Amino acid sequence: MSARTHLGRPRKIIDGLEKLVGRAPYVADQWLPGLLHARPVLSPYPHARIRGIDRTAALAVPGVHSVLLGADLNVKPMHSRPSLLLAEDLVVFAGQPVALILADTEAQAADAAALLDVDYEVLDAVEDAEAALAGGTLVWPQGVPKADGGMAGLHGGEAGAQVAREPSNVDEDRTFGRGDVDAALAGAAFTAGGSFRVAGVHQGYLEPHAVAAQPGARPGEVTVYTSTQGQYVVRSEVAGALGLRERDVHVVPLTVGGGFGAKYGIMDALVAAAALHARQPVRLVLTRSEDMLTTMPAPAIDVTLRLGADADGTLTAVDADVRIENGAFRFGHGGIIATMLGGLYRCENVRIRTRELLLNRAPVGAYRAPGVPQALFALESAVDDLTRQLGADPLEWRLRHAVQAGDPMGTGRPWPDIGLRDCLEAARAHPLWQGRRDLPAHEGVGLAVGGWPGAFSPAGAVCRVDTDGTVRLHVGSVDISGVHSSMVLIAAETLGVDPDQVEIVQGTTDSGPYAPNSGGSQVTISLSGAVLDASTQVRDQLLDLAARHFEAHRDDLELTGGQALVRGIPDRAIPIGKLAAQAQRAPGGPGPVVAEGRAALKAGAPGFIAHLVHVRVDPDTGAVTLRRSVAAQDVGFALNPLLVEGQIQGGSAQALGLGLLEGLDYAGGTLANPNFLEYAFPTSTDMPPLEALLVQRPSEHGPFGARIVGEPPITAGAAALANAVREAAGVRVTELPFTPEAVWRLRQAQSGD
Amino acid sequence: MSARTHLGRPRKIIDGLEKLVGRAPYVADQWLPGLLHARPVLSPYPHARIRGIDRTAALAVPGVHSVLLGADLNVKPMHSRPSLLLAEDLVVFAGQPVALILADTEAQAADAAALLDVDYEVLDAVEDAEAALAGGTLVWPQGVPKADGGMAGLHGGEAGAQVAREPSNVDEDRTFGRGDVDAALAGAAFTAGGSFRVAGVHQGYLEPHAVAAQPGARPGEVTVYTSTQGQYVVRSEVAGALGLRERDVHVVPLTVGGGFGAKYGIMDALVAAAALHARQPVRLVLTRSEDMLTTMPAPAIDVTLRLGADADGTLTAVDADVRIENGAFRFGHGGIIATMLGGLYRCENVRIRTRELLLNRAPVGAYRAPGVPQALFALESAVDDLTRQLGADPLEWRLRHAVQAGDPMGTGRPWPDIGLRDCLEAARAHPLWQGRRDLPAHEGVGLAVGGWPGAFSPAGAVCRVDTDGTVRLHVGSVDISGVHSSMVLIAAETLGVDPDQVEIVQGTTDSGPYAPNSGGSQVTISLSGAVLDASTQVRDQLLDLAARHFEAHRDDLELTGGQALVRGIPDRAIPIGKLAAQAQRAPGGPGPVVAEGRAALKAGAPGFIAHLVHVRVDPDTGAVTLRRSVAAQDVGFALNPLLVEGQIQGGSAQALGLGLLEGLDYAGGTLANPNFLEYAFPTSTDMPPLEALLVQRPSEHGPFGARIVGEPPITAGAAALANAVREAAGVRVTELPFTPEAVWRLRQAQSGD
Repeated sequence: MSARTHLGRPRKIIDGLEKLVGRAPYVADQWLPGLLHARPVLSPYPHARIRGIDRTAALAVPGVHSVLLGADLNVKPMHSRPSLLLAEDLVVFAGQPVALILADTEAQAADAAALLDVDYEVLDAVEDAEAALAGGTLVWPQGVPKADGGMAGLHGGEAGAQVAREPSNVDEDRTFGRGDVDAALAGAAFTAGGSFRVAGVHQGYLEPHAVAAQPGARPGEVTVYTSTQGQYVVRSEVAGALGLRERDVHVVPLTVGGGFGAKYGIMDALVAAAALHARQPVRLVLTRSEDMLTTMPAPAIDVTLRLGADADGTLTAVDADVRIENGAFRFGHGGIIATMLGGLYRCENVRIRTRELLLNRAPVGAYRAPGVPQALFALESAVDDLTRQLGADPLEWRLRHAVQAGDPMGTGRPWPDIGLRDCLEAARAHPLWQGRRDLPAHEGVGLAVGGWPGAFSPAGAVCRVDTDGTVRLHVGSVDISGVHSSMVLIAAETLGVDPDQVEIVQGTTDSGPYAPNSGGSQVTISLSGAVLDASTQVRDQLLDLAARHFEAHRDDLELTGGQALVRGIPDRAIPIGKLAAQAQRAPGGPGPVVAEGRAALKAGAPGFIAHLVHVRVDPDTGAVTLRRSVAAQDVGFALNPLLVEGQIQGGSAQALGLGLLEGLDYAGGTLANPNFLEYAFPTSTDMPPLEALLVQRPSEHGPFGARIVGEPPITAGAAALANAVREAAGVRVTELPFTPEAVWRLRQAQSGD
Repeated sequence: MSARTHLGRPRKIIDGLEKLVGRAPYVADQWLPGLLHARPVLSPYPHARIRGIDRTAALAVPGVHSVLLGADLNVKPMHSRPSLLLAEDLVVFAGQPVALILADTEAQAADAAALLDVDYEVLDAVEDAEAALAGGTLVWPQGVPKADGGMAGLHGGEAGAQVAREPSNVDEDRTFGRGDVDAALAGAAFTAGGSFRVAGVHQGYLEPHAVAAQPGARPGEVTVYTSTQGQYVVRSEVAGALGLRERDVHVVPLTVGGGFGAKYGIMDALVAAAALHARQPVRLVLTRSEDMLTTMPAPAIDVTLRLGADADGTLTAVDADVRIENGAFRFGHGGIIATMLGGLYRCENVRIRTRELLLNRAPVGAYRAPGVPQALFALESAVDDLTRQLGADPLEWRLRHAVQAGDPMGTGRPWPDIGLRDCLEAARAHPLWQGRRDLPAHEGVGLAVGGWPGAFSPAGAVCRVDTDGTVRLHVGSVDISGVHSSMVLIAAETLGVDPDQVEIVQGTTDSGPYAPNSGGSQVTISLSGAVLDASTQVRDQLLDLAARHFEAHRDDLELTGGQALVRGIPDRAIPIGKLAAQAQRAPGGPGPVVAEGRAALKAGAPGFIAHLVHVRVDPDTGAVTLRRSVAAQDVGFALNPLLVEGQIQGGSAQALGLGLLEGLDYAGGTLANPNFLEYAFPTSTDMPPLEALLVQRPSEHGPFGARIVGEPPITAGAAALANAVREAAGVRVTELPFTPEAVWRLRQAQSGD
């Protein structure tokens, strides 16, 4: 398509109005006949035995329907946070639900929750990585509860070699790589590296986890209304945890107030079990503190890294030891971390060890590009130091060594066509980079690169034309980050209608169509093909109808402005709604104008980024002020540039928050800052201008050349920030987030040298 | 298909459980955030001027949100009962809403409704047909409000010649026919006939009209939750009445507690307008009395009829004058009445005059086979009398004269292939007919025939296979009378799965797919083809997947027992859910197993019936006891015989109720019996055994040979009842319903002769 009317042009999101006027259907607004309100009771201890629970006082609160304990619920053996509905004998993390109160009002449930008398025997807890590795106390003395799959596969992670072992807090210990790292390091002319740590961070969606469940007519049948990124995952989780048939679990995805990887059904099985037990609808909307205590944030990650280069600066070795603090359940970050740590630069010798550690801490989950911002903070800081040693320009050095199509990822598989070098070139051309040497004192620009391989999945979509000309796209995906606003453009482009004429119909697990999760950066590239297929079939149907209507040849017809018309004869035009009405009403058909499209990419469309961050470091206090962020990201083709830029801006903000401000404080094994007052999310006043440079190197696989967009923007910003601080203040930050005091101390230590 | 596993075999309805356990989603169970409850205030006068309405007392009731009057609502010019939201200056029927109270609870709304002070100036009313014809008072002195279309077209009615006239209470005066009736009657050897009257009757669904509406985000956007037989009609009605865009009206059809032609959106526009006005959700559930006063029952119909026959008994003339008491708005029964009155028997000379009268009475609407039970009561009574004069067997005479393919309907168009004679033959073979001469004294068997041409429309349907093997059928039709239970069988048959493995997904006007109304007897024959098309496409997809899986040729594969298998190799089998999972998950596709089917019949599939009724008439009191009902109906092919029999039984019961018990009493212009206590619906104790004989003469057009089923069963029962009374008691009943006293008086008059 040479001249596109809608695709590739910026257009605002389609659901802005309903969100502004308060009509977007959030779970917290759902009401069902006989609804009970739920309030969980969370363990204050990271590790404890429950000696007994006295429900008397809680049940005496007026309006309380029941106090559910683990033994009351009919569940399958637990293997994950979502399947561990309620603790039974043992508590394995502070924040773990031990009971669920059901009452007529939220206030009654909260009153009862406060009165529940739980008798805990506090046990020694595995509070940090050192304790986990020491193994004096085991989180799971009988072995780690395991399930098949989990979230890792959704994000394009890959498996490495795994050694079977005795019960241990080291859940997985894998080594990925190639070549002879020890020899390469021994022979290196230059080395750089160190130990880096990033604190655990929380996804920080504005809407806490919220679920309502209603029992169905059949025993074991339940409908779940939920804020989720993937309704089919929730269906599987609920069915699996409760031992129900998948067909008896109906999931209705409602408006999502932010997900970032966290909204895959953490509380859904519990609420469904409660509704089935009570035989009444139950709704649970977590408070902010409950949400931060009991849900699944990103892990704290330690990376000890060493790079080697030969005399001419060629990278010869990447050696990394990664420790991931997973909390009380398994989660697999290792594969994706290795993929990226060993897959950004050409290097013949790579060794990446990843250890997934179990602790008595809230289990971790996916958070936008899981593990990669943390790992690349280490890698890109070390690269920065290495180029300083080499006296090389950090951008030119990266350009020389950056991977391209055919080069191996950290797991050995080759990259398809990618645009990492294009991103670096775009960053190089930007005035911020060009002018980086002309800045005032105490200011500096840092560079880092990142990226994400991205998942992809088959999908379906239905396109219909209604008799008033409205085009309806029926999709099974969940709209986060404006996904559906881009689908509307595809249909509008294909059918020659204004995007305002296209409406999205949100499917459920019952109605379908099938679509992948809105996560792993995959939904747009996976769904677009199905929407295009359905729209193209509908286009064909409309052209056939118009050809019959005008007694004209199809090749002489076109669809534009909501009409079918005969080219060159302006008065021979008919609105597509009239064609649909004819088709839908005529005896003998052809029947309604409608088509179901299917699509399945053969391979992914990875996205890369080069991130520039400009800071000022106060020489007296160490305080860092963010001046500017410029992220050059290869998006292949921006279906809707406004939304793609928004994604990049949002990811940049999260990257900078992770670098400068955010950190879960698990001192003593219990989260000390479970709220937005003490956990410092960046606000608009913290953020500098966030510029998004759209690099558009078309993907060979993505629809219209589009690449994944969601995850890359968060991957390099924290590292770029650290490199900017190095440039501005001369100190190397090795721990995120960092306080002014930490920078000040580093500067003091340096000047004391 | 020679050997069918599921189609043609009796199977219970799919939604029985949810109805039994109270989980079927009725409107009255819907709750929406901020819901207001509505109560209408109905005019007690059939014709009145509203001098003023004082809202003070009503507004003072605690919890009252507002008292809406006609002038408060932004409506387009009214043209029908549904579009006449609230009376403004003039009231044209008793039961017409003049105000709507919105309150926090139903009780508050009812209290306020009772306190609303309406100052009426009572006017002379057009209370009966004589007054309407006299024209001293006109219902619409400025001319009848007219709209395009209306309901008549939905039921297969046809237009006759219409003469334009001055404002009159005779809305339409048409004459249909052929030949020279006057000459034929003048030359007839035998004539029979008389004047017949059937009272107005109410559809009597168990669930009163119920609607909830919720404003949307856009101005003028509204979602309507309703009990309806046709969601697309409701969308058009609401959009048309309120001047909204169709795309801004979202209709969600909920479980229907009975429709019988009445559930096409009588209150929907009013409730939608109220919700838009209040900017809050509003729900209205009519009480039984409100429902009977304000909704749209069947008209009272008078037929004056004369038949002529020549010396050998050949029918030579049908001359009918039909007066239809339509109430305050137009409705077109004339075409369909003429179609059937002049289309049951071969006759060269036919003249049928139909006059649609306007009265100050609740406007009428569709009720199962609108107008035909009433018209055929006259025709079949007269035929019975004619055969007595001829000394002919009433069944044999009908067999000789009954229409068949190519014979004209009353409107002149030829019938397609029909099974009226087959029905008569089936009735002839039945023991009740064979033994009719051996009954005790005061008992008798009456025969009458009937039928219905039936509508048909294009439709769509989506079929999907989920990863657990569940087959989902997504339809836009509304399930009344078990329609969807038959669709399940079509999919099960096509895909080789148990019907329990198939689930229906109810579509909305947004999600589609498009389907015709569940009315006019058309939905099963119209929808089946789309379901078959979608299922067949899915079957092809599954066979392709299995061929790839087994590396076998498609021709060697079959689908059975929920599996695809290689014929003759029992251990080479794979569940279809596994095939769907492979297709849905594999990179490169083919993607989800799903297809959208479309179908559009080229012509209809009329259904006919021969009805036998056996009664005893008490010689002393005239009381009629129903002994047995046998209805032989040509259903073409019974997709699900259990449900087809149920339809025939239900229609038979309604026919007998209409004959023996039911009648709207409009004495004085106001309905005197607006409740189930005084309006005598038949109960189970009134009904005799209701036998359904399935005649299966395959239709050339209907899917699998199926014919329309819904309307024929009500068409002949009342006439057969009257003929049975003639046989048992020797008297000709000419007015329905008839009391024991009426029969007793007829007998007295006869013995006095």
